[in-house]
Amino acid sequence: MIDYATLAQESPSEVRHMIRKGQWDQPTSGLANGHTQANLVILPADYAYDFLLFCQRNPQPCPLLEVLDTGDPIVESMADHADIRTDIPRYRIYSKGILSKELTDIRAYWRDDFVSFLIGCSFSFEQALLENGIPVRQIEEQRNVPMYRTNIPCKSAGIFSGPVVVSMRPMTERQAIRAIQVTSRYPSVHGAPIHFGNPEKLGIRDLAHPDFGDAVTIREGEIPVFWACGVTPQAAVMDSRPDIAITHAPGHMFITDQKDTAFSIL
Amino acid sequence: MIDYATLAQESPSEVRHMIRKGQWDQPTSGLANGHTQANLVILPADYAYDFLLFCQRNPQPCPLLEVLDTGDPIVESMADHADIRTDIPRYRIYSKGILSKELTDIRAYWRDDFVSFLIGCSFSFEQALLENGIPVRQIEEQRNVPMYRTNIPCKSAGIFSGPVVVSMRPMTERQAIRAIQVTSRYPSVHGAPIHFGNPEKLGIRDLAHPDFGDAVTIREGEIPVFWACGVTPQAAVMDSRPDIAITHAPGHMFITDQKDTAFSIL
Repeated sequence: MIDYATLAQESPSEVRHMIRKGQWDQPTSGLANGHTQANLVILPADYAYDFLLFCQRNPQPCPLLEVLDTGDPIVESMADHADIRTDIPRYRIYSKGILSKELTDIRAYWRDDFVSFLIGCSFSFEQALLENGIPVRQIEEQRNVPMYRTNIPCKSAGIFSGPVVVSMRPMTERQAIRAIQVTSRYPSVHGAPIHFGNPEKLGIRDLAHPDFGDAVTIREGEIPVFWACGVTPQAAVMDSRPDIAITHAPGHMFITDQKDTAFSIL
Repeated sequence: MIDYATLAQESPSEVRHMIRKGQWDQPTSGLANGHTQANLVILPADYAYDFLLFCQRNPQPCPLLEVLDTGDPIVESMADHADIRTDIPRYRIYSKGILSKELTDIRAYWRDDFVSFLIGCSFSFEQALLENGIPVRQIEEQRNVPMYRTNIPCKSAGIFSGPVVVSMRPMTERQAIRAIQVTSRYPSVHGAPIHFGNPEKLGIRDLAHPDFGDAVTIREGEIPVFWACGVTPQAAVMDSRPDIAITHAPGHMFITDQKDTAFSIL
C-alpha cells in the first residue's frame, strides 16, 4: 500500500487510479486534500424515483451531488469519467437491508438497471471550520464523527422513510456562532446546523453512545452542535429493505474532482 | 372581481380561497405580498423520473420547492392543504408541446397518474432587491420580466433537454455587486446571477426582443444582469412534447404559505 501522506497531496484522479488498481483499500479521509468526497447509494431503477424524491424532500440530510443515468457507471459531472464500480476503496452490498458482502470492486455485480446516487458529506465544510479556528474533535482524536438517529422524521417518499440522522461536533457557544455562519455558506452539503445544546430535544439519550461512528470528548464549557448527516439516506434505504442496494463502506468515500470551496455560495 | 389592493394584503389561504371560488383569474404578482409564489408543471408519472432528474441536474434554473405524490392534488408542504387543481387562477394544457386549452380549473382533466411539481420563482428575491435599493425595472414599468433563451445547454435527463432560460434586470455595476450579495442568500430560488454585461456571451442577440415576457428600459449607465429562470424547465417540457403537460399560465402562479424571507439562508 502507498502511504497516507503521499495520497493526501495527490490529485483526485491519481488517487482514484490507485484505488482502481487495488493499491489503496483504506478510508479516504484526508486523501486528495481539499477535494469533496461523496457518499454512494446504488439502487435498481424500480426504486430510483422514490429515492430521488426522498432526497428532494429532505435536502438538508440528503444533498444530491450527482445522479448517474440508469445502467451507466461513469461519473461525468463530479469527476472526469470515473468508474463508480472500481474507484471507491470498499463497497457494501445489502440484500433486503442486510449486509451480505464487503468488497473492493463491484463490476461482477453491476446491472443494467442500477442507478448511482452521489450524496454530499460534511467533510466538505470541515476544512472551512478548521480554517476559522473551530475545533473538529473527531479529526483531533482521529476517530469517525459521532452520528445519532433523532426523533425528527424525514418526509417520506414512496417506500423510503426514516429519522434524520445527525453528526455532532462539540465546541463553545462562541465557536458555534461562527460555525453557523461558516456552514451556512455550504447549503448543498448540509448547510447550517439543525440544533445545538440539549440532545434530548432531538431524542438523543446518550452522546457517549452514538448510533454510527465513534464517541468524541466533550470538554468543559463546550456544547454539542448537530448537523444533518449524509447517513440519513443510507439509513432510510436499509430500513426499507430493497432487494439489493450497494453503498460505500463507512469512511471509504468517492473522491470527486471538485474542490470543497466550490460548494460555498459565499 | 375583488380589487388588487385588497388581495395584496390578504393571507395566502384567503387569496387561494378567492381564486378557488372564481373570484380572481388575473396575474398573481403582488398578491398576499411577501409570500413565495411558485411555477407549476404537471406531468404523467411516466415522465416524472426524467423530469425530477432534470431538475436535480439543473438546480439553479429548476429549483424544486415541492413534488406531490403521484395522483395526489393536495399541496402539504408549501401550503396547508391547497388543491393544485383549483387554487391557481389560470392553467394551460399542452398536448405534445402544443397549447391546447387555457382554463381556471383542471379538475375535469385530473388523472390518477399525474405528478405535480412546484418550482421556485425569482419573485422570491425581488422584494429583497427592492429593500436593498436595487431597481427592479419590470416592476417599475408594470411589465412581465424579460426572459431570454441562452446558448448554455442544461444537463439533459432522459427525454428532457434544452437551453438555460434567463431573466434580466438592468442596474448599475454598483447595484449589481449588491444584487449578487443579496441573491446569493437565496440558493433555493435561483441564487446569484449567472452573468452580467455583454448579452452576446449568452447568445442573446437583442435585449429589446425577449423570448418570453416584455422588454424593459435599460438606462444610461446600466448593465444587464442575468439570473437563471424558472421558465427553463417549462421550456424543456414543451420542447420534449410529452402527450400531456399542464402548467400555470404565465404570471398566474401558485401562492404558497411560505414567506419569501424563509428562503434566505442568511
